[in-house]
Amino acid sequence: MADAVVRPKKPATKKRTPAGGAPTAAHTAAEADEARIDLALVADRLLGTWADTRREARELIKDPVFHKVEGMPMAEHRERALSQLHLLAQQGASRRAFPREYGGLEDNGANLAGFEELVLADPSMQIKGGVQWGLFGSAIHQLGTKKHWDKWLPGVIDLSLPGAFAMTEIGHGSDVAALGTTATYDPDTQEFVIHTPFRAATKEYLGNAALHGRAATVFAQLITGGVNYGVHCFFVPIRDDEGAMLPGITSEDDGVKGGLNGIDNGRLAFDHVRVPRENLLNRYGDVDADGTYRSDIPSPGRRFFTMLGALVQGRVSLDGAATVGTALAEHIAITYGNQRRQFDSGAGTEEVVLLDYGKHQRRLLPRLAQTYAQFFAHDELLRKYDGVFSGRTDTPDEREDLETLAAALKPLSTWNALDTIQECREACGGAGFMAENRLVGLHHDLDVYVTFEGDNNVLLQLVGKRLLSDYAKQFAGADAASLARFAVGQTAGRIFHGAGLRQLGQTVADFGSTARSVELGLRADQQHELLAGRVQQMVADLAAALRPAAKLSQAEAAALFNSHQTELIEAARAHGELLQWEAFTDGVAAIDDEATGQVLGWLRDLFGLWLIEKHLAWHLINGRLSGQRAASVSRYIDRLCARLRPHAQDLVDAFGFAPEHVRAPIALGGERERQDEARAYYAALKASGQAPVSEKSLRKK
Amino acid sequence: MADAVVRPKKPATKKRTPAGGAPTAAHTAAEADEARIDLALVADRLLGTWADTRREARELIKDPVFHKVEGMPMAEHRERALSQLHLLAQQGASRRAFPREYGGLEDNGANLAGFEELVLADPSMQIKGGVQWGLFGSAIHQLGTKKHWDKWLPGVIDLSLPGAFAMTEIGHGSDVAALGTTATYDPDTQEFVIHTPFRAATKEYLGNAALHGRAATVFAQLITGGVNYGVHCFFVPIRDDEGAMLPGITSEDDGVKGGLNGIDNGRLAFDHVRVPRENLLNRYGDVDADGTYRSDIPSPGRRFFTMLGALVQGRVSLDGAATVGTALAEHIAITYGNQRRQFDSGAGTEEVVLLDYGKHQRRLLPRLAQTYAQFFAHDELLRKYDGVFSGRTDTPDEREDLETLAAALKPLSTWNALDTIQECREACGGAGFMAENRLVGLHHDLDVYVTFEGDNNVLLQLVGKRLLSDYAKQFAGADAASLARFAVGQTAGRIFHGAGLRQLGQTVADFGSTARSVELGLRADQQHELLAGRVQQMVADLAAALRPAAKLSQAEAAALFNSHQTELIEAARAHGELLQWEAFTDGVAAIDDEATGQVLGWLRDLFGLWLIEKHLAWHLINGRLSGQRAASVSRYIDRLCARLRPHAQDLVDAFGFAPEHVRAPIALGGERERQDEARAYYAALKASGQAPVSEKSLRKK
Repeated sequence: MADAVVRPKKPATKKRTPAGGAPTAAHTAAEADEARIDLALVADRLLGTWADTRREARELIKDPVFHKVEGMPMAEHRERALSQLHLLAQQGASRRAFPREYGGLEDNGANLAGFEELVLADPSMQIKGGVQWGLFGSAIHQLGTKKHWDKWLPGVIDLSLPGAFAMTEIGHGSDVAALGTTATYDPDTQEFVIHTPFRAATKEYLGNAALHGRAATVFAQLITGGVNYGVHCFFVPIRDDEGAMLPGITSEDDGVKGGLNGIDNGRLAFDHVRVPRENLLNRYGDVDADGTYRSDIPSPGRRFFTMLGALVQGRVSLDGAATVGTALAEHIAITYGNQRRQFDSGAGTEEVVLLDYGKHQRRLLPRLAQTYAQFFAHDELLRKYDGVFSGRTDTPDEREDLETLAAALKPLSTWNALDTIQECREACGGAGFMAENRLVGLHHDLDVYVTFEGDNNVLLQLVGKRLLSDYAKQFAGADAASLARFAVGQTAGRIFHGAGLRQLGQTVADFGSTARSVELGLRADQQHELLAGRVQQMVADLAAALRPAAKLSQAEAAALFNSHQTELIEAARAHGELLQWEAFTDGVAAIDDEATGQVLGWLRDLFGLWLIEKHLAWHLINGRLSGQRAASVSRYIDRLCARLRPHAQDLVDAFGFAPEHVRAPIALGGERERQDEARAYYAALKASGQAPVSEKSLRKK
Repeated sequence: MADAVVRPKKPATKKRTPAGGAPTAAHTAAEADEARIDLALVADRLLGTWADTRREARELIKDPVFHKVEGMPMAEHRERALSQLHLLAQQGASRRAFPREYGGLEDNGANLAGFEELVLADPSMQIKGGVQWGLFGSAIHQLGTKKHWDKWLPGVIDLSLPGAFAMTEIGHGSDVAALGTTATYDPDTQEFVIHTPFRAATKEYLGNAALHGRAATVFAQLITGGVNYGVHCFFVPIRDDEGAMLPGITSEDDGVKGGLNGIDNGRLAFDHVRVPRENLLNRYGDVDADGTYRSDIPSPGRRFFTMLGALVQGRVSLDGAATVGTALAEHIAITYGNQRRQFDSGAGTEEVVLLDYGKHQRRLLPRLAQTYAQFFAHDELLRKYDGVFSGRTDTPDEREDLETLAAALKPLSTWNALDTIQECREACGGAGFMAENRLVGLHHDLDVYVTFEGDNNVLLQLVGKRLLSDYAKQFAGADAASLARFAVGQTAGRIFHGAGLRQLGQTVADFGSTARSVELGLRADQQHELLAGRVQQMVADLAAALRPAAKLSQAEAAALFNSHQTELIEAARAHGELLQWEAFTDGVAAIDDEATGQVLGWLRDLFGLWLIEKHLAWHLINGRLSGQRAASVSRYIDRLCARLRPHAQDLVDAFGFAPEHVRAPIALGGERERQDEARAYYAALKASGQAPVSEKSLRKK
């Protein structure tokens, strides 16, 4: 099935002869008198810029040795995940991001693309790989210098040096600047003394800490000469070659978690552990032998954020992995919903296919549209990441944009993963609750994505603050006349979008080419106007509400800000949704196959309208939509769902998953086989003349 | 802590001296210059009509032998759950619903109340107990007659006869009438032949089927004399005393599930298995020795629904269990959120308590209000159930109302459980993902509550149809004049509420006594008008939209209905929300302690406003709220959250959970202890004169 998608054996037919029936009656695009997507083309676009790497990764993980075994006890699962990482390293899957000098490929985009696909095999393997190569390895690579690379990168890449990334503490997760662990320089011995001064400063939730890590990249307050220079990262060996803890270091096991139980998360505490001065990962700050601190970045705040920004890839990759995992759930639920039947319609003997129910379409299809949007948005994000980390576009502005984009998209896609996987699991009923059908496992494993690598609400708050500061910049040098113009609201949109936070793509493509949703005055350009207008208005309203803060005490200002925290986060969410919509629109515009463009245009419309419906009250209150037009939004969504229903299977087949990726029995044809068997039984019974008559028919006589 | 709630050692003080500070700055009601709830009183009201039984059950499950062990391998967990059931039986916890003749108490309400509390110990134990006593046992009790009770009830109660409830099949879950299993009467041997004619007819997801069940109550199409009399229930032995499958019966193991892995769910298939004629549970239909079918209920449809209705207790109990489980999650998250600190506010050195953040309040407090509403609504439901099943109010109308109420409330509370537990887990960050803190386990175990014992969407659709038929009844004998009056809309509310679906309580109590939310024109009576008006309008709109169906072909009518399925389900949801709001309002009105009534009144307002905010676009489109008033709803919710924030701990303490029920380390004071230790460390360091100075302060010099 998926092979046919990725390497089509026959060309996809575009136009079919009419087969009659209303949209909800047609179960496939072939049955419907309609355009049909070019499966191979869409599959290719969804795989995105690094399609080859994604195909390579998917091919690799067809091997059952990489597949999660549901219900495997934790201890066994942890060893399995470790052995899978060894296999990945042997297959060269761990080296893509690293310098060529150490056997790497220096291909940052490909590295994350390949990594993201691993979620199809086992999210534990994916995240344990992320700990080793994306966090521990990246800390050495991005925060260290050549002497560190020479010493440790080969072991990082070939996994002879498994490591933990020791940033979070029991007492401080999101607020990294307030970490309690200290690294105090001792000039007499030219060593740093790594110390956990109290229980809350214990490093916590660290993959590889409980069992497998031999070293850790430890974030600690760098103190030298009686001055605290803020959080820096240190390479600290934690276990000897036999796996015993080194002196002064204690490890505790986090035990069972809500998911990802193939990872040995744990705690690390340090009791005056000494490491050589050279173990400071010194790309952004260093200490001389005599204890003098030096850094190319004089501002402590900017230095701190530069160091954290160097580790943005975790967030980028979660956006992609969450999207792939969500797509898998939709593939399973829509394939099953397209075969499973329940209740006859009262109109005949044949029971109704679940996906023919209006509510079932409403549950699954808008979420499918959301996932499509995420694929396109993620590819844009990944390209931006690759540009910055390859050095091609590595400017402070681009870095800041990248970080803001990642902070805007990762919350939306990881939350959507949980929402959509759950809806898919419920849409499959009891079968959805069986571990073998994968939906519950996906939910368990992806659950923590919404709070790790940056808590989603904290990330959106960062985005909101950025939106506010970009907004304020418009007026920094503005004269009274331009402010007045702004106040009139005539040019607000242009001012804001012209110089404000960059959009994802270059510009949103000409709407004309994809504006197929002409009905009801909710065409693409009007969707954009509503979505973009909402972001602008929300930010402007917030800025106005927070303006008095400048004249308040710090405590009063904090209270004012706090009273608008919810709206700030909502504005950031609206911004992220706009970016996803724009990326989807650009993606559709880039498709020159007419039939494919038409169907994906409907899907993009469904996404846009669904976003507008979610925030319909806002559009009404703010006079963006009349009551009449607002009322038409939900009806239009229902109609789009019905129109897309025959294309649903094509749209999830275009994800390109092979049976080895899907694995869920309910999505591999078993349901249809059982129905055929039951149908044959009843037909044979009828033909035999032995079929019992119903009591009802008897009573009629 | 909880002991103080249930058996207060000192009277709760009602008024405190002002401690100053804005509402968000006060962390406890004692600090705030406000009323304070009477903890013991509220705890008592939440425990409801069967408070004594609930206290008894909670006391029993303080014993660690009943506590879920997170991460326990499935096989071990299953045996543990079985042994827990034996302990429950020994303690007399299994007999409450059964006849006195067999050692029972004939106390239906108490039975479910006690059963619901078991979710605090281990949901697997709760549901496995539900399978044995609530499904298998109830089928024998409710669908069988004295000969069956004599033979099997003692073994059901003391667990010497563990059983499965074999209704659902692989091919048919929600559509029970279409089951494929047959029970064909053979007059020659006076036996029923139980048979699984094809794979899809295999009984599926049955607790006790994989391992522990010795018998099953099997639902099958009763065929005698060549006539199918529809689905009936049969007692079928499945294993011998050594646990070996009996001839003709095969069992398969469902294996690992998304949760509830202490239950041995599995499949059962029957190959022409013969059981004596007497094994038909014959309360509602019987077969004579010669094969003649007889029933007191001539209509096959009504007979079928009567049999299913006799098993409504599963839905009733899930409403309660989901509410208790949700309350536990809120207790954990709010207690932690009230101690955990992160980020300083910029206004001082002390970091901010999570629950002081506006967004954190917004995430947790409306959901707390929802849970309070559920406690009150559930107690009403349980009283109605007890009335019907005790025989006191056992009329067809009351039975139908009970079934509709259960179908309206169970979906709302089980979905809210998943939503709220997930929000609680995220609000606790990484700590929320650790199994020891229980939130992930609760989510996993309660996940299936939304699709079993009636899929939530299917149940709401039933409620929606009932609303439509009640609505239609208003006009059955109406003359032209009354129809015209209705059309004018003057009396729609009265007509609808007067003769339509009964409200939960008798009448909603006088709003005046609890109408404390006078601001902004959103007082209790206005909340009620909006919530009730929405139900009425939605049903009326649906009826109008579906009116043409009468003139359409069956297929066209089905298509028309299908195109409005989403709205039908939404109308049912609105109805359920209204019932919850009314029950909450009645509950608050019944409280004569002024301070308690005031705080709970705010909480009820929060619930009402939150419901209105959820459907704000509807209220705007339908002209129920002006844009200005609508805009004030969200602001008012923010203010209610801030006002309730100092009471948050009291409100979750009033759930009355003891540490043995909570068990989550993050909710048992560890976080506060660690903060105190860290604070002491920094204070001592400062006092020592050895504290490093910050780079920032250095640079200022």
